[in-house]
Amino acid sequence: MDKILRINVSAEGGPTALEEGLGEYAGLGGRGMTSGIISKEVPPLCHPLGKDNKLVIAPGMLSGSAAAVSGRISVGCKSPLTGGIKEANSGGQGAQALARLGYAAIVLEGKPADDTLYKVFINKDGVTIEPDNSLKMLGNYATVEKIKAACGDKVCCISIGQAGEMKLSAATVAFTDMEQRPTRHAGRGGVGAVMGSKGIKVIVLDDTGMGMRKPKNPDAFKSANKEFVAGLKQHPVTGEGLPAFGTNVLTNVLNEAGGYPTKNFSTGQFKESTKIAGEALAQIEKDRGGSATQGCHRGCVIQCSGTYNDKDGNFLTKQPEYETVWAHGGNCCIYDLDTIAMLDRLDDDFGLDTIEMGATIAVAMDAGIAEFGDGEAAINLIKEVGKGTPLGRILGNGAKVAGQVLGVERVPVVKGQAMPAYDPRAVQGIGVTYATTTMGADHTAGYAVTANILGVGGSVDALKPEGQIDLSRNLQIATAAIDATGMCLFIAFAILDQPKTFQALLDIINGFHGLSLTADDVTELGKSILSKERDFNARAGFTNKDDRLPEYFKNEKLAPHGVTFAVKDEELDQVFNW
Amino acid sequence: MDKILRINVSAEGGPTALEEGLGEYAGLGGRGMTSGIISKEVPPLCHPLGKDNKLVIAPGMLSGSAAAVSGRISVGCKSPLTGGIKEANSGGQGAQALARLGYAAIVLEGKPADDTLYKVFINKDGVTIEPDNSLKMLGNYATVEKIKAACGDKVCCISIGQAGEMKLSAATVAFTDMEQRPTRHAGRGGVGAVMGSKGIKVIVLDDTGMGMRKPKNPDAFKSANKEFVAGLKQHPVTGEGLPAFGTNVLTNVLNEAGGYPTKNFSTGQFKESTKIAGEALAQIEKDRGGSATQGCHRGCVIQCSGTYNDKDGNFLTKQPEYETVWAHGGNCCIYDLDTIAMLDRLDDDFGLDTIEMGATIAVAMDAGIAEFGDGEAAINLIKEVGKGTPLGRILGNGAKVAGQVLGVERVPVVKGQAMPAYDPRAVQGIGVTYATTTMGADHTAGYAVTANILGVGGSVDALKPEGQIDLSRNLQIATAAIDATGMCLFIAFAILDQPKTFQALLDIINGFHGLSLTADDVTELGKSILSKERDFNARAGFTNKDDRLPEYFKNEKLAPHGVTFAVKDEELDQVFNW
Repeated sequence: MDKILRINVSAEGGPTALEEGLGEYAGLGGRGMTSGIISKEVPPLCHPLGKDNKLVIAPGMLSGSAAAVSGRISVGCKSPLTGGIKEANSGGQGAQALARLGYAAIVLEGKPADDTLYKVFINKDGVTIEPDNSLKMLGNYATVEKIKAACGDKVCCISIGQAGEMKLSAATVAFTDMEQRPTRHAGRGGVGAVMGSKGIKVIVLDDTGMGMRKPKNPDAFKSANKEFVAGLKQHPVTGEGLPAFGTNVLTNVLNEAGGYPTKNFSTGQFKESTKIAGEALAQIEKDRGGSATQGCHRGCVIQCSGTYNDKDGNFLTKQPEYETVWAHGGNCCIYDLDTIAMLDRLDDDFGLDTIEMGATIAVAMDAGIAEFGDGEAAINLIKEVGKGTPLGRILGNGAKVAGQVLGVERVPVVKGQAMPAYDPRAVQGIGVTYATTTMGADHTAGYAVTANILGVGGSVDALKPEGQIDLSRNLQIATAAIDATGMCLFIAFAILDQPKTFQALLDIINGFHGLSLTADDVTELGKSILSKERDFNARAGFTNKDDRLPEYFKNEKLAPHGVTFAVKDEELDQVFNW
Repeated sequence: MDKILRINVSAEGGPTALEEGLGEYAGLGGRGMTSGIISKEVPPLCHPLGKDNKLVIAPGMLSGSAAAVSGRISVGCKSPLTGGIKEANSGGQGAQALARLGYAAIVLEGKPADDTLYKVFINKDGVTIEPDNSLKMLGNYATVEKIKAACGDKVCCISIGQAGEMKLSAATVAFTDMEQRPTRHAGRGGVGAVMGSKGIKVIVLDDTGMGMRKPKNPDAFKSANKEFVAGLKQHPVTGEGLPAFGTNVLTNVLNEAGGYPTKNFSTGQFKESTKIAGEALAQIEKDRGGSATQGCHRGCVIQCSGTYNDKDGNFLTKQPEYETVWAHGGNCCIYDLDTIAMLDRLDDDFGLDTIEMGATIAVAMDAGIAEFGDGEAAINLIKEVGKGTPLGRILGNGAKVAGQVLGVERVPVVKGQAMPAYDPRAVQGIGVTYATTTMGADHTAGYAVTANILGVGGSVDALKPEGQIDLSRNLQIATAAIDATGMCLFIAFAILDQPKTFQALLDIINGFHGLSLTADDVTELGKSILSKERDFNARAGFTNKDDRLPEYFKNEKLAPHGVTFAVKDEELDQVFNW
């Protein structure tokens, strides 16, 4: 993993590939790499779909190694959705394959001279780029099928669907999973639109003949990894809840806590929640011959995913995530899992962010485009997006644009990005993260649901402002570091609660890279990434006024607790004062 | 003009009216009043369509008096288009009528409990407010017809069309002209959407029984006004060019200068320009029994407007302005005046900003929605807006939103507002104004076309960056002051070139108000307005990064001169350092 692949799409004859050494980016991985390159090389005021933006795809520092759950990959750019820096994180096979092929990053740069669509092949012998307009306006599933037919069932695909080709701001970059299906997505912020603007439909990774990356200190690495895996297995979240019910185990928990955003964030509980909760989901999956316990990439020991079959027992989609079930479910008052699974499938196929789309459909329902609870209408709306009709394009550009175009005032976004599945009034720590993260509203950037709701990593009263700033700050720093390692963010549960597991993580990194990092060094790594991102956003024109929730979260009380978001603006301004 | 009328639309039983004294706003008028109230009373981070935004309608300091050309009115709010402060300025009868009725401002505030539509009547006896859902989704023309049928042909209407009711960001507030037609518009920044969000369809002003406002010093006022009128008549622009050919006299001038933005700002000359120039327009108007020389309000001595009849000699629309002819004409490669006049009529009827709509249709043409030059398609697109179809809503929200939704990179906006009819590469002074004004791209905020192109108020090479900062700064200061007086901005030509005419303006103000203002005081007035606006925008999150043109104006050369916008960012940051 000692080289960067730059694909310049500006050339008249089609994209050209250039490999170079890591240079100043040596040692970076994942979000550290994407935010490092973007903050250094992309002019912050450039148009996100123009020649000066870049799309960086980077496996984590430990990806491609034998380290457990190290198969996460970062996709970075200036976001078409937020106008700020973006790192969207995905599972799937991409990180492992790209890392084993020796690439610390792929950088797509420039602007195509025409609208020819290209596919990129990368294997142990190098890089090939070919035009292929037969892929135009194919979904991710059909695209992957064509690649499989040509390249076999071992390759990994990084692709965009129709949404990315249409440069919609909710477009994702899809990564194939272990079953070679395009179910894992760098979902947020419109990274797929940037890939589309570069004219690249699919990047095919074939790591045949490439072994695992070797640790500098094999013995230390191996024993640390063993300790680390034991720690993950031992923690109730990563060892029991997630494997049994997936992330959707949260539905009942958040609903009980009164922080489950329902009907476009108008109330905090959904009376039909049990019908779409993880428990119900797992039962359907098992009953129909699917699976409720499955990993998204080689080396996963948590196994929070699964397989959702239709009523006839045929594969429909992967196990929908909690955020997806909420976005297309409770937030739209829909409580039919088959409908939600179909929406998940369509989003994956078109290449759309499920969180943004669910939030957007709820806004459209608020505008009267469809009735809350009408699942068939929701499916038809997503199909409009795939077809690129005017209405589809409105929705495919996310909740903020849809709110403006449809004349809706209550739009739950920060920095133009839709809020995920936790109402910030009832989970005030996540509200601090939504408001202040460089990413726009993003739960993964500092998952304060831990101490606010789950009693993980301490306990901070979810309904009060006290303690939320420190909580969010520390989590944002830790998250930035974890996102650099290539480790799944879900390790946070175990490392927050179990000092031995955290030490094991440090030992894995040190054993692999021959370093002697301390906890403080990891903190510094996180801070340095956040500082680069903050600096980029400042140069793009962001101020503390962008670190705010929409006013109505401060004014409108949320049932059942009757709470408003009470963290003061002056406190929000302290999150990055460390 | 010693009271403010506040209409609170929040009450369950419908809007309530409250008259109050001027208080701290005493002495303010026009833009001074609107920006004074907005900057003081509106939370800068509020939603533009929410309960905390206000719509302020304020005649100028001299409106309602015998002062020549003093019939301009300001409409202010937080703009749904830019997110910043907005003052949109209009002619028509509103300023004179409102001032004579004694109101220095009408303030619409709060948020309606339901979607009932209201009409407001104001006469010498006071204010009446009535629900009238029969007005729903009527155009401005039909709305005015209904009011005329009920109230006679002396009243003045301030209304919104379908665009305002739909809260589209390009929606205007319409004012009836001397022929009681809704042809004069506070056009820019979506002020009509804010009026729509307050549930007020029309405000009817009946100034029967109210005399002209009386000057404190009648003799001084009268003789100054005489001198002032003589100055306007004597200047070649206000005395000859504008009366003969209207603002559209500029088409050939700008085209010759290579600064006429053509085909969505892709080149600086339009080979068909003479077919749509003021000379051709005036000929058609005369040939068909219309008029090429007409005022837009009582007391106008410039007479830059006119009447455009269709081929059968029936009234179609008022004389389209230069900006309209450009926006719907050259910028879309359309060169048929009947088509352009029809687009003007439709915009006026739906209540849409002609500049924003022309710029947006050009962006849509760049996206392939229609062919450049296809006038019938352009008419159909505007009709889509009036119908509120998804495509219509996309377009009705302006060029920036349309660009994002349709995936177009080259979108000529600043702060989200579309550029008017002067390419900033070939008229660099206007580029400085576009970039830095608080309003978003707006030629009227500091009309550097004067010294850049027209040789008025000195001469500064239009193609070079030198001298443009000072030019734009001084014009922005002077403009803010003129916009406070209620005087038509076109007086600037005469007062820039003729010291005696400028002195006459001072004497008019002093004679009317019993003051002894000097030129320095006028400068201070302008600065104080700009400072309030800048402060509001800063509190709304604007930084110097918002004071920039889109990057492509710096990178792409404009034919025929092969120029890019060359004023440096650091220089732009000096505009408000005085």
